[in-house]
Amino acid sequence: MQIKLSEIIQPIEKELDLFNDKFKISLKSKVGLVDLVTKYILKQKGKKIRPVLVLLSAGLSGEISDRAYRGAVLVEMLHTATLVHDDVVDAAETRRGIPSINAVWKNKVAVLIGDYLLSRGLMLAVDGNDFDFLRVVTDTVKRMSEGELLQISKTRKLDIDEETYFKIISDKTASLISTCCEIGARSSTDDVNKITALKNFGESLGIAFQIRDDILDYTGKSKIIGKPLGGDIKEKKITLPLIYSLKNVEKKEANRIIKLIKSESKKGRISEVIDFVLNNGGIEYAESQAVQFIHSANESLKVFPDSPYKSSLLELVDFVVNRKN
Amino acid sequence: MQIKLSEIIQPIEKELDLFNDKFKISLKSKVGLVDLVTKYILKQKGKKIRPVLVLLSAGLSGEISDRAYRGAVLVEMLHTATLVHDDVVDAAETRRGIPSINAVWKNKVAVLIGDYLLSRGLMLAVDGNDFDFLRVVTDTVKRMSEGELLQISKTRKLDIDEETYFKIISDKTASLISTCCEIGARSSTDDVNKITALKNFGESLGIAFQIRDDILDYTGKSKIIGKPLGGDIKEKKITLPLIYSLKNVEKKEANRIIKLIKSESKKGRISEVIDFVLNNGGIEYAESQAVQFIHSANESLKVFPDSPYKSSLLELVDFVVNRKN
Repeated sequence: MQIKLSEIIQPIEKELDLFNDKFKISLKSKVGLVDLVTKYILKQKGKKIRPVLVLLSAGLSGEISDRAYRGAVLVEMLHTATLVHDDVVDAAETRRGIPSINAVWKNKVAVLIGDYLLSRGLMLAVDGNDFDFLRVVTDTVKRMSEGELLQISKTRKLDIDEETYFKIISDKTASLISTCCEIGARSSTDDVNKITALKNFGESLGIAFQIRDDILDYTGKSKIIGKPLGGDIKEKKITLPLIYSLKNVEKKEANRIIKLIKSESKKGRISEVIDFVLNNGGIEYAESQAVQFIHSANESLKVFPDSPYKSSLLELVDFVVNRKN
Repeated sequence: MQIKLSEIIQPIEKELDLFNDKFKISLKSKVGLVDLVTKYILKQKGKKIRPVLVLLSAGLSGEISDRAYRGAVLVEMLHTATLVHDDVVDAAETRRGIPSINAVWKNKVAVLIGDYLLSRGLMLAVDGNDFDFLRVVTDTVKRMSEGELLQISKTRKLDIDEETYFKIISDKTASLISTCCEIGARSSTDDVNKITALKNFGESLGIAFQIRDDILDYTGKSKIIGKPLGGDIKEKKITLPLIYSLKNVEKKEANRIIKLIKSESKKGRISEVIDFVLNNGGIEYAESQAVQFIHSANESLKVFPDSPYKSSLLELVDFVVNRKN
């Protein structure tokens, strides 16, 4: 049975409300258009997984202080900035069921709002003298853009091995998840063991999350996940299930599949590639890798005594990784 | 006679070479595509006005230290990031005579490279423990995006007065110029008077620069400035020469011109608006404003004794403001 997010956030329910207020206030601007767009963003109502990770990690490491809230606002601001830029990058028409910023206000406004959110988040950290947060976060933003760019360059060549795949998902996805946990820990403790444990927890969680996301592109039910099956194949994104399957067959067959992915006009090619992966153990292999990272994530928390925060973080692993959408 | 940039930079010639080396090294990335794009950016060879301002301001305030170079690399990195994003925002096909990043690698790569440059610049400041730079710079990035967004929202309504115009150009253009001078000063002195003087110098210089840029849209020779006359009118950007001219005629005539600007299909409308501004004192008024800010800029430097650095900064005002392109 799928755990509900409302149960997971129970130990930080009040804190999350307070975070939401602080986030809303931090977005305010004297420029009317900025206010209009950020209010629209608030309507999109994300799951707020990243602030939840910051607050739970802070609680687990000591107490949830003002610094934890600043960290939570900072990561949510960065995450929102990257989503807004991503929608420009992918020319996405919708986000969380409503039209995307670029669809409503055009690319121009979307790029600038992304820059605004990025700088606004960093300013909060500067104003709060949270220079340790800045150190972590600027490196993360760099890793995220490098990861996406590495993926783009590999996508163009359709040339990607497992090592590169893990480098890409670690940079583009796991880095921010890991940063949320690290910042939460840093907000309430100086204990390097605790900080490292939570940082590693986030890294493993982020990788497991992305592997599962990539599996869903092959096995998910399109109606539930809200995007068509095989979207990655269409975009020529080579992910773990396919990498494994290609390695697992003869060179000739692998080349045939690669050619199929390249041939944009050919009808039925996407379902042929999906079948190829399903028939060559790609899903099982990717699953086994995800399970390993889930195990690592859970292991990382062993240094902490049991607590409601710890239980929630462990449940969150389940929630994030077993989600159907 | 136009002063040459090569004469202005004489007191910092060696330092500027060293800056160029450091800038090149700072752009390096392990991701091949990032390296490819940043090498391309280096080929575009900008005038490097911003690093020049940092180095001259540092020299004028004391000495040109390691911190000054980090500041110079930081501002050039931010400036480059905003140029790359601007070209996406404006769908520009060329930059400094060669195809733009978005034209060669598409919007996707351009948005991500901009984010990469922004975070890379901030990382250098974090690594150097230049938290005073970060304070100044994150506020600047926020002001630049807010200024652009304010301009966009006002452009849509064609409703802009002189006060709003000055707010926009101060945020979108003068803020970074001012930051260059402030960072240069901060890199070599704690003296608040010197820091404030150079900050104000940069602010006035930036405003004068933008007014002159806006005047050139009405009076420049299209071949020299490399963009067609009346580009702002076409984009419905209402700048100082037009704002003044509209205020200076009867309501009925002003409404006719506003309507003309809105009527995208009407032939000859751009030259009609240009003539309207030329005939109603818009250029002379904007010139008089630019001259006032040039005067303010020069006045700001009075607290410093004469030196080659000071002479160069004063010459730079002339160079920037009297440029024909």
